[in-house]
Amino acid sequence: MPTKLSQIGEFGFIDLIRKQMGSSGKRVRGIGDDTAVVPSLKNKKLLLTTDMFLEGVHFSRRTPAKAIGHKAMAANLSDIAAMGGVPKYALVAMGVSGSLKWKYLRQIYEGMNKTAKEFGVEILGGDTVQSNKIIINVSLIGEAQRHELLTRCGAKKGDQIFVTGRLGRSLQSGWHLRFKPRIEESRYLVKKFKPTSMIDISDGLAADLGHILKESKVGAVIYEDKIPRRGQASLKNALYDGEDFELIFTLSHEDAKRIKRQKKY
Amino acid sequence: MPTKLSQIGEFGFIDLIRKQMGSSGKRVRGIGDDTAVVPSLKNKKLLLTTDMFLEGVHFSRRTPAKAIGHKAMAANLSDIAAMGGVPKYALVAMGVSGSLKWKYLRQIYEGMNKTAKEFGVEILGGDTVQSNKIIINVSLIGEAQRHELLTRCGAKKGDQIFVTGRLGRSLQSGWHLRFKPRIEESRYLVKKFKPTSMIDISDGLAADLGHILKESKVGAVIYEDKIPRRGQASLKNALYDGEDFELIFTLSHEDAKRIKRQKKY
Repeated sequence: MPTKLSQIGEFGFIDLIRKQMGSSGKRVRGIGDDTAVVPSLKNKKLLLTTDMFLEGVHFSRRTPAKAIGHKAMAANLSDIAAMGGVPKYALVAMGVSGSLKWKYLRQIYEGMNKTAKEFGVEILGGDTVQSNKIIINVSLIGEAQRHELLTRCGAKKGDQIFVTGRLGRSLQSGWHLRFKPRIEESRYLVKKFKPTSMIDISDGLAADLGHILKESKVGAVIYEDKIPRRGQASLKNALYDGEDFELIFTLSHEDAKRIKRQKKY
Repeated sequence: MPTKLSQIGEFGFIDLIRKQMGSSGKRVRGIGDDTAVVPSLKNKKLLLTTDMFLEGVHFSRRTPAKAIGHKAMAANLSDIAAMGGVPKYALVAMGVSGSLKWKYLRQIYEGMNKTAKEFGVEILGGDTVQSNKIIINVSLIGEAQRHELLTRCGAKKGDQIFVTGRLGRSLQSGWHLRFKPRIEESRYLVKKFKPTSMIDISDGLAADLGHILKESKVGAVIYEDKIPRRGQASLKNALYDGEDFELIFTLSHEDAKRIKRQKKY
């Protein structure tokens, strides 16, 4: 039983993906071919996003392998959530060292695949290359009806600002490795309300709300005591830490009143 | 005028992409958002492929920047060509060092964008991260009618084997940095003939024809003097070098007779 990746190579990795995909693989032509083939999405918009994760920047070899895989997939899912979309397919390209333990790589993949499956995403294979440091690139394809689409540029004067969860100290608390991408919350909002803008928090409340304000050409007042904070997080943590992967969204006065009456709220 | 990437950052890179995209950017929502939005492709199959390129593995800092960009895009185009598809959208994720000259990065992007445009592909933005070595990941989305799709598994006993160009010494001759992905040839074949299988040559004629044979469950005889070779290439070069990015395809006896009568042939 080979344990080093150099003994297995790209074809071993493709076989692993093929096996892990199980029955879902049947719908998809192209594992084995370099290109995957999937049905197109009728009368919908395609959402396309990509994120790169590097050892030494986003994680280290002390990071639990499954958590690395989870985060790589979940951060992309968060991008789709921010648009109000439904994630569908993922392409994964990895740079891996021949000295890497097969088990470690498999666990990265398992973490990625578990999170993908939880949100109905099929991993369609991809590319592997030789690299001293681990590199993970996930490209995610989602869909949305045109009227469901949310962007950063629709916030209006008089809207209220909401977030889907607590902010700050994501890195210190390990939240950034186990966060749940807000796909469900996003779909709930899209179906039941008319959010005027939405974004996910990767750079911090201040910076990401700033994107909404800039692209919507509006200003905002935020109240210190209304910002939900995680555990020991200070105001500064909540505003600037980033990697919370919660959604910021804006609602009209009427929708804001309505959402506050919901049980979920 | 800043010249180092560290003075410009991700937003500079997004602005660069936005500017370079010019008017085509209007059709596409989402540069600025992390996720791009494009119309879905009605009644067609989606083709999805991804390739990762690393400094020190696939190129060095002595490689002309535009050629790096060209190759990263063209290798993905070659994957779509191998399926008989039409390329549509690209997502680009890059790892770049803060010490990198802005001009060098811009030239990589220009090389990528020129080749994308030549084949009707829109680059929809992507991700940039800090990395000592340059990393380029391109994900490409294409489309095809279901009946146009070609894979590796349809070759039949009695078929004849063709390639779209000369083989061998791609690395030594610099072909791997300037090759033209065989999109046009692939579309011509799909429209005018019924290729029974197709693949592009990345690992060499022997290995890639081997994929067709294995997945089609057939054998093959190839005649040494019928293999078109590039310049000084030996038989060994033509069989094993790889990175030719030509297409191998198989045709029935009737189609083979017919294609040999074409002017293009």
